Amino acid sequence: MSEFDKGGFTLPGESGYEDLTLKMAEKWGADVIRDSDGTVLSDEIVNAGYGIYSTICIIRDHNEWARAHMDKLQQSFLMTEPQIAAEGALTIHLMDGFFEEQFVVNDSDASLKYWEVYDRTTEEKVDASCWSYDKTGGNVVISGATPFHTYTVSFLAYRIWEEISMYNHVTNNWDKEHLMPIDPRTQEAKDYMYQWMENWCETHPTTTVVRFTSMFYNFVWIWGSDERNRSLFSDWGSYDFTVSPEALDDFEKEYGYALCAEDFINQGKLHVTHMPAGKKQRDYMEFTNRFVVEFGKQLVELVHKYGKKAYVFYDDSWVGVEPYSEHFEEFGFDGLIKCVFSGYEARLCAGAKVETHELRLHPYLFPVGLGGAPTFTEGGNPTLEAKKYWNSIRRALLRQPVDRIGLGGYLHLVEPYPDFCDYIETVGKEFRRIKSMHGDGGVYTLPCKVAVLHSWGSLRSWTLSGHFHETYMHDLIHVNEALSGLPVDVKFIDFEDVKAGALADVNIVINAGRAGTAWSGGDAWKDAALVETLQKWVYDGGVFIGVGEPSATEGYQTYFRMASVLGVDEDTGARVCHGRWQYDVNTDIAKKVFPEGAGVPARDHLYLTDGKADVLADANGIPTAAVHDFGKGRGIYLGGFEVNNANTRLLLNLMLYGLGLELDQNYLTDNAQAECAYYPASGKLVVINNSGEKISTGIKTEKGTKNFVLDAFETQIVDL
Amino acid sequence: MSEFDKGGFTLPGESGYEDLTLKMAEKWGADVIRDSDGTVLSDEIVNAGYGIYSTICIIRDHNEWARAHMDKLQQSFLMTEPQIAAEGALTIHLMDGFFEEQFVVNDSDASLKYWEVYDRTTEEKVDASCWSYDKTGGNVVISGATPFHTYTVSFLAYRIWEEISMYNHVTNNWDKEHLMPIDPRTQEAKDYMYQWMENWCETHPTTTVVRFTSMFYNFVWIWGSDERNRSLFSDWGSYDFTVSPEALDDFEKEYGYALCAEDFINQGKLHVTHMPAGKKQRDYMEFTNRFVVEFGKQLVELVHKYGKKAYVFYDDSWVGVEPYSEHFEEFGFDGLIKCVFSGYEARLCAGAKVETHELRLHPYLFPVGLGGAPTFTEGGNPTLEAKKYWNSIRRALLRQPVDRIGLGGYLHLVEPYPDFCDYIETVGKEFRRIKSMHGDGGVYTLPCKVAVLHSWGSLRSWTLSGHFHETYMHDLIHVNEALSGLPVDVKFIDFEDVKAGALADVNIVINAGRAGTAWSGGDAWKDAALVETLQKWVYDGGVFIGVGEPSATEGYQTYFRMASVLGVDEDTGARVCHGRWQYDVNTDIAKKVFPEGAGVPARDHLYLTDGKADVLADANGIPTAAVHDFGKGRGIYLGGFEVNNANTRLLLNLMLYGLGLELDQNYLTDNAQAECAYYPASGKLVVINNSGEKISTGIKTEKGTKNFVLDAFETQIVDL
Repeated sequence: MSEFDKGGFTLPGESGYEDLTLKMAEKWGADVIRDSDGTVLSDEIVNAGYGIYSTICIIRDHNEWARAHMDKLQQSFLMTEPQIAAEGALTIHLMDGFFEEQFVVNDSDASLKYWEVYDRTTEEKVDASCWSYDKTGGNVVISGATPFHTYTVSFLAYRIWEEISMYNHVTNNWDKEHLMPIDPRTQEAKDYMYQWMENWCETHPTTTVVRFTSMFYNFVWIWGSDERNRSLFSDWGSYDFTVSPEALDDFEKEYGYALCAEDFINQGKLHVTHMPAGKKQRDYMEFTNRFVVEFGKQLVELVHKYGKKAYVFYDDSWVGVEPYSEHFEEFGFDGLIKCVFSGYEARLCAGAKVETHELRLHPYLFPVGLGGAPTFTEGGNPTLEAKKYWNSIRRALLRQPVDRIGLGGYLHLVEPYPDFCDYIETVGKEFRRIKSMHGDGGVYTLPCKVAVLHSWGSLRSWTLSGHFHETYMHDLIHVNEALSGLPVDVKFIDFEDVKAGALADVNIVINAGRAGTAWSGGDAWKDAALVETLQKWVYDGGVFIGVGEPSATEGYQTYFRMASVLGVDEDTGARVCHGRWQYDVNTDIAKKVFPEGAGVPARDHLYLTDGKADVLADANGIPTAAVHDFGKGRGIYLGGFEVNNANTRLLLNLMLYGLGLELDQNYLTDNAQAECAYYPASGKLVVINNSGEKISTGIKTEKGTKNFVLDAFETQIVDL
Repeated sequence: MSEFDKGGFTLPGESGYEDLTLKMAEKWGADVIRDSDGTVLSDEIVNAGYGIYSTICIIRDHNEWARAHMDKLQQSFLMTEPQIAAEGALTIHLMDGFFEEQFVVNDSDASLKYWEVYDRTTEEKVDASCWSYDKTGGNVVISGATPFHTYTVSFLAYRIWEEISMYNHVTNNWDKEHLMPIDPRTQEAKDYMYQWMENWCETHPTTTVVRFTSMFYNFVWIWGSDERNRSLFSDWGSYDFTVSPEALDDFEKEYGYALCAEDFINQGKLHVTHMPAGKKQRDYMEFTNRFVVEFGKQLVELVHKYGKKAYVFYDDSWVGVEPYSEHFEEFGFDGLIKCVFSGYEARLCAGAKVETHELRLHPYLFPVGLGGAPTFTEGGNPTLEAKKYWNSIRRALLRQPVDRIGLGGYLHLVEPYPDFCDYIETVGKEFRRIKSMHGDGGVYTLPCKVAVLHSWGSLRSWTLSGHFHETYMHDLIHVNEALSGLPVDVKFIDFEDVKAGALADVNIVINAGRAGTAWSGGDAWKDAALVETLQKWVYDGGVFIGVGEPSATEGYQTYFRMASVLGVDEDTGARVCHGRWQYDVNTDIAKKVFPEGAGVPARDHLYLTDGKADVLADANGIPTAAVHDFGKGRGIYLGGFEVNNANTRLLLNLMLYGLGLELDQNYLTDNAQAECAYYPASGKLVVINNSGEKISTGIKTEKGTKNFVLDAFETQIVDL
């Protein structure tokens, strides 16, 4: 048995399948067995000598207490569908369009004082004397509505169905009691939850690790009554589910100013993570984060008192936990578990300040996957799925390791899939070897020190807001996914960081996103000091890479505030009569930096500012990729970025080209479908095939060029 | 000889080709012979019994006087290329990037007081004490420039080469003296021009019509020094070439407030016609319009005194003439001549308040056309060109007639093209027949009364700013071109008109354009009274058709202010986490309204507001065409509009559908490639084939369905 056969692997056990559980634990080298949502572990499993993880969700599964304390349920602000006044009074039924199994109006006096009616045609708040609440009908009646103006009502609603439970229930057609989410905001609720936790610890002596799923507040998921529009709003990073009259009152006491419904509702747009946050939103997030840390820490200490470890799951009810906030370490968690599909999620987990980082790999052992596609059922191919996900995660782990991996779900589903069982065994071994190489010393990294610049900075390192398939429409998630496995240093900074000197230790800055978003930056770019600092930094030798609508904001001579650096700007309409510089694509540079298959999507309205940029790609006569000298540095523009193997290499090539470095560096594959990682201390070279085809590649090393032939998705590890 | 063989036709004569001139005059039924830029008429032609048009351009061809009065040349504000300060003082060479044969710096004291230096990083004006002008070097030196801020200088330049002359010169490699444009702003210049005109009239007794080309100020055409970026700015409707210290001083006296350089420069964007104008721009346009009318009227009266008529050309130096302003009739012009490629230009000419409307058809009798493509030279096909242009214009003339047509250029070029000569003979006859039918009574029109709604309203009826090939990137020019030949009433209104009751006599409003532009409307949509009025009007039965980003403005609950009517809105980024209504394309309606070949371009970021719209087309899962009931009226959304025969019919079908009318109305062809016009008084039905293929079509009439087979581009006229 090799040192790479066992450890760092969490297996989902299943009662009734004791033999299988122990067999697979052996095969996959598990050191820990866990339960899952919907499974329990029998004594035989619990006593088999493995570490035992137990999942708990502290805010649900208390329906008896919840029914007795309906005013302690979690809440949210909702805005009614906009309604147009025709003649006379306007009656707005509050719950129209909302999923009645998720929400119920909170019409207590404490709640009513926060309700707001808006004339959305003028954006003026309607005076409280002009509307009344008809409790019986659940309507707000606006007496003096202006004909043909649009009105909305913002109100508070209790949430009567915990959202993850709701999703699993609806997806799997369960017929169980709906679990209600309770809010720890009041002392009474906190006392109840603390005692429950204490009792739980008493009654679960065999558990070695309590896995919190997660803390108290779920990401926002507002459901609609119409099946044609079931998900009204879904944002992995938003705080709308943390609100209550009590929280608002506490906020006012702490911050000296009051928040109102509109501070959350924001014209019905709410505050999506993808848009820049204002001061009030930041204050409220920090307020909530501190609250979650404060009570969370008490629970963690309780768990520790029982000699157990406390891990937290970085999904579901993770809102307020903020593993990248300065308060996270105060929780005292022993581990962080992240469910991952992508490389950037592996980095997100690996980068948090906590002792143990663990990945929950996909596919989960469920009959169907997230999109409803078959996995462990007729028509599914779980092995291929596992290969593709591992393919994305492996390259990230080559850059930065985690401590553990594992699976979730119903173990018995793997029985008819022996190739899946074999493949996971392989994955386990690869994972352990990679981890051990990091233990021997650092991985070889090119002299590219990248800062990804956006509104959230380090608080939203790596992820935007959730999984790749939820955020694919943003250029930046593609960039982050590419970066997650590239041999470069990466950090995430915000605009204040720039002014505070964060550029001192980087030579590449990336700003990527749609105008006005948190990723591009929006109004932050109105700050002349920011522009000045960045321009000086590039002038002195930095490389600024802009993707999409980087540094875009209205009101200035250029739309991209970094246009002088990029040599490219976008016409918002006022320059439609201005001539455009003619250009020829610089094929010499383009051939060097664009690997076969790489490309940049077409974009309208772009133009060259001073005609001096080298255009590397264009579409419909409009440049889509360009490099532009600026002092000793360079601006690099890409109209968009879609992650794939070729474009990932394009990004690396552009960084090297921008810095004036040769593209054929040591320890780079000469085939963009492959990547490698070199560990100088041990002399190990890991070569991975990121494609589903058999390929060959050469790698320039200090000891000459080495050649490799790799099967689809294969990993090879050699000593140099 | 038929009544349709002669009249209303202006032939370009050419000395040295007297026989050809008289032969073609006979063949084409000319009643008037004209000279052209670069041709003269010999006595033999002048005395052959035809009316004689003579073209004059009052502001050029006075180089002797101009050289003696260089301070009376026309001027313009220019802004230097943005330049970044690194260390120490910043020196900006004013003329860098500008075409030195077009501009020369006006550094008189009167001019210097209007110069401005801007820090474009902060958008702050630099105090005059911080910069100085180095006259010898032609530089502005900014002493205390902030490092890594961007600076520009706005200055006044004389224009030393009249732009039309410059264009013809450069295009044809002429080697003649550059003609300088003189500015009638001073009394001295006016006196000179008036006397010159008087002398001209004295010495040209045979001229029956003086054709002014045009009045005093050319549309804006700023050329650059680099052949890769020759046209820095080009806008057919902008007023930048009318400015001078004297004009600015006069403006301040009349309006009580001063304009500054930045009021013209606008961060280097200038004020393109395609963007909404502010009050200052409007005031300045009106100020200039009144000035041009005042002096122009004196010249027209002078011409009249000599028993000649005065026509004005609606291109070139037309700025300030404004045939759709309330002042136009004050000129006293007898005719308006428009150079046309498109149907909307025919309507633009036809709709002006003047006695005689004349079209200058394309192709001009030049070796090459506007884009440099061959016409009357090897590789050219002038007959096919003529057919295509006539094809666009014919349908417009079926709706609204003009009085005359004609050609321009060098007549001798037609000699090797007998088929062209024959085709123009046919065009002349068709034109006269169409004109006569209008004379007999009005054309049959469907009960569709359309108001096109944009920032300029009637002042920019039909055209946006110039020819189709200059404005093709705007949806609205496609819409206008489609409308120009449809059997509907059309007017153009602005946002103030809406509030002043302009919707009373229309049942369809079209708003089409990119967000923020003059065509969509930009900030005008912040006016709640506008939204209220339009919503009420639709609710009461109106049809609102929005194309592209109609009624779009930031700051409200929806981006399209008419989203409640349209049932469609656009997500600017803040709604990326909001669910989207699922839909099925309503193929029943789609099949009815979309003729074969019709289509709507794909667009990102659109979503259904309330899920109640009928989606008629989509692309990439995003609706691109939708109809939505609103009270008794309807909103219709199109993601874009590209004019062709099928889409033109689509637009008509949507109007009929919107109004709740049957699509198979009388006097509509059942083939979208064909159109027809019916003149009830004479019982004439004109059927035209708008395609280059042989086609057949049926037409439902009060006397049953009539069937036609038409050759490519053919016109058939029958009695019903």
